[in-house]
Amino acid sequence: MPNSFESQSAPAPVAKANKTAARDRFESTFTIVRDELFAHFTAHGLPPDAVEWYSRVLDYNVLGGKLNRGVTVIDTVEILKGRPLTDDEYLKASILGWAVEFLQAFFLVADDVMDSSITRRGRPCWYRQDGVGSIAINDALLLEGAIYRLLRTHFRRTPYYSNLLDVFHDVTYQTEMGQLVDLITSPEDRVDLSKFSVERHSLIVIYKTAFYSFYLPVALAMHMCRIPTSPTDKSDSDPYNLSLEILLPLGEYFQIQDDYLDFAGTPEQIGKIGTDIVDNKCSWCINTALAVATPAQRAVLDANYGRKDPECERRVKEVFEAAGLRERYEAYEREAYKRIGALIDDMPEVQAVGGGAVVRKEVFRSSLEKIYLRRK
Amino acid sequence: MPNSFESQSAPAPVAKANKTAARDRFESTFTIVRDELFAHFTAHGLPPDAVEWYSRVLDYNVLGGKLNRGVTVIDTVEILKGRPLTDDEYLKASILGWAVEFLQAFFLVADDVMDSSITRRGRPCWYRQDGVGSIAINDALLLEGAIYRLLRTHFRRTPYYSNLLDVFHDVTYQTEMGQLVDLITSPEDRVDLSKFSVERHSLIVIYKTAFYSFYLPVALAMHMCRIPTSPTDKSDSDPYNLSLEILLPLGEYFQIQDDYLDFAGTPEQIGKIGTDIVDNKCSWCINTALAVATPAQRAVLDANYGRKDPECERRVKEVFEAAGLRERYEAYEREAYKRIGALIDDMPEVQAVGGGAVVRKEVFRSSLEKIYLRRK
Repeated sequence: MPNSFESQSAPAPVAKANKTAARDRFESTFTIVRDELFAHFTAHGLPPDAVEWYSRVLDYNVLGGKLNRGVTVIDTVEILKGRPLTDDEYLKASILGWAVEFLQAFFLVADDVMDSSITRRGRPCWYRQDGVGSIAINDALLLEGAIYRLLRTHFRRTPYYSNLLDVFHDVTYQTEMGQLVDLITSPEDRVDLSKFSVERHSLIVIYKTAFYSFYLPVALAMHMCRIPTSPTDKSDSDPYNLSLEILLPLGEYFQIQDDYLDFAGTPEQIGKIGTDIVDNKCSWCINTALAVATPAQRAVLDANYGRKDPECERRVKEVFEAAGLRERYEAYEREAYKRIGALIDDMPEVQAVGGGAVVRKEVFRSSLEKIYLRRK
Repeated sequence: MPNSFESQSAPAPVAKANKTAARDRFESTFTIVRDELFAHFTAHGLPPDAVEWYSRVLDYNVLGGKLNRGVTVIDTVEILKGRPLTDDEYLKASILGWAVEFLQAFFLVADDVMDSSITRRGRPCWYRQDGVGSIAINDALLLEGAIYRLLRTHFRRTPYYSNLLDVFHDVTYQTEMGQLVDLITSPEDRVDLSKFSVERHSLIVIYKTAFYSFYLPVALAMHMCRIPTSPTDKSDSDPYNLSLEILLPLGEYFQIQDDYLDFAGTPEQIGKIGTDIVDNKCSWCINTALAVATPAQRAVLDANYGRKDPECERRVKEVFEAAGLRERYEAYEREAYKRIGALIDDMPEVQAVGGGAVVRKEVFRSSLEKIYLRRK
């Protein structure tokens, strides 16, 4: 599930060039992060074969994606400040961006072991590399550990250091909760569609993907811009809760789109062959089909979903078509766009400590527009 | 490796009764921790099957050990304060103790998957339970996540909150570094004794075991008692560095003892059958033997170490005996006891912020005495 935030709808040429430039500039800061982490390893007296192994872990797993989560941190800091960043601000924002990318790498490496996945980002999964195997589990943990090393080096003396740590911990724990529900709902080897439901799908998607992919980059940028938390953390006027109330539905919409494209997108569009049906995934498509299926259709789904057999997959797809999934998705997408747009229109714009940054609607509006009608 | 801190030498009857009482009191606070974590899960709207799964993860993996690391936090806070704890202090110290026990559980669950271990604490490893398998990886991550949930609930408003987070992060990362070196030095399927050395063994033991088992519980207690860090974190007079300089050699001594008992202890003594030789473990015994082996003995070790064959194991043991491992261990133990004792004698006792707690020699002396001449 979590890696398709990396593909986006085709933007206008100028916007696309800006986007590529933004990504390139962000990517160029990776050497700073890498050198720092190696220097720390070496200072601890770790032997050269361990430093070299760690170097392979980083290069293989942190790079290779579209880096949208990391770039979002920087973009959001710029929107919140309303001006170009100083070099120091850019460095700080990019460290936060890399921290999010390391979190993503940590999840992907671990998830691929848990799911026995074959490929990731068009290459074999890390654990399938020669000599890696279950060492990948510890490699995933080191990727997670690097987050806190980076934060410590660059933010230890800022007044919002513990806020950054808290948001990383919260979001990590929430993602693991989502992964737990996903794993026990659709184990690879025991198909049981009675465990599925639209509600459960929503919970999985929000916990497993939306918190870390949509809320985390924005929340980090908000902390860096000194947007205050409400003292109770619960209040309706807390700007972090307000952001959450927009970003979680946005993340859910994004993932539903992703689930739909796994079924309806062509390989040319989505850059891969969809496998959710044969992999027994608790996807929007199966849950929507189950909710409207006739008893006969339900029997077909029970007998054919999650089977590694093209004929079974074809029968499931037939039911999806008969259940009108295409129209249902289009209706869902219109409704989601309207609903999330209204949430953005209604949100108050909150001032930061000392009167600087404001949580602007533009933060959310730009994400929504990037996602709407995405077909790849 | 990491679970034998749970066995100790037989103490005098009164001390033993006190120790059991201390452990029982600590164990009785587990329900508080458990209830808190479940309430949080439930508040997030996780479904009953997920809460029930999490409950099984906690009960199976956090309990069942001797809880020495957790009890050490409480004991150390008492020694530092020099008086019995108030109820609130006891609760806070026990939360820190449980946080260490959760860290241990996280490492054990993940390590058992990585090492394809069979049993743990006399029962099947968690990942081998019916229906668990690789879901154990996510379960391990949830155990780690629970640490930060507990710290947040009980310490968010203390002035030393970020110190607690930093020490957990540092120690976790260091343990993962040690695990990396261990995994690439002695992979289960590729025996290559040329990678082994006494220096590498020392590095593995200190990073993989000593930081989290010996330094962490004491450092947490020191933070709770407001023992100040030096501003540079590097100074010779920093009390945390001073503690580290005693506790890391102490942890190394403990693990070497453990390695030795795996070879020389009877099953009645150590409560298990030693498997380090057949498991290709980078243990003190093999490294010491390699350092003194004749070319003929070396050839026997190369041909027989790390093989799942009792006859190979017997040949390795023969070389261990011929190399005088028993005498070498006794000499090592005398030297280590003397050396660490001298470190304790020479340490300055540092005053806490506001003139309260002092880092007393007793913290270290009592640990050293517990370990010395341990034969089970």
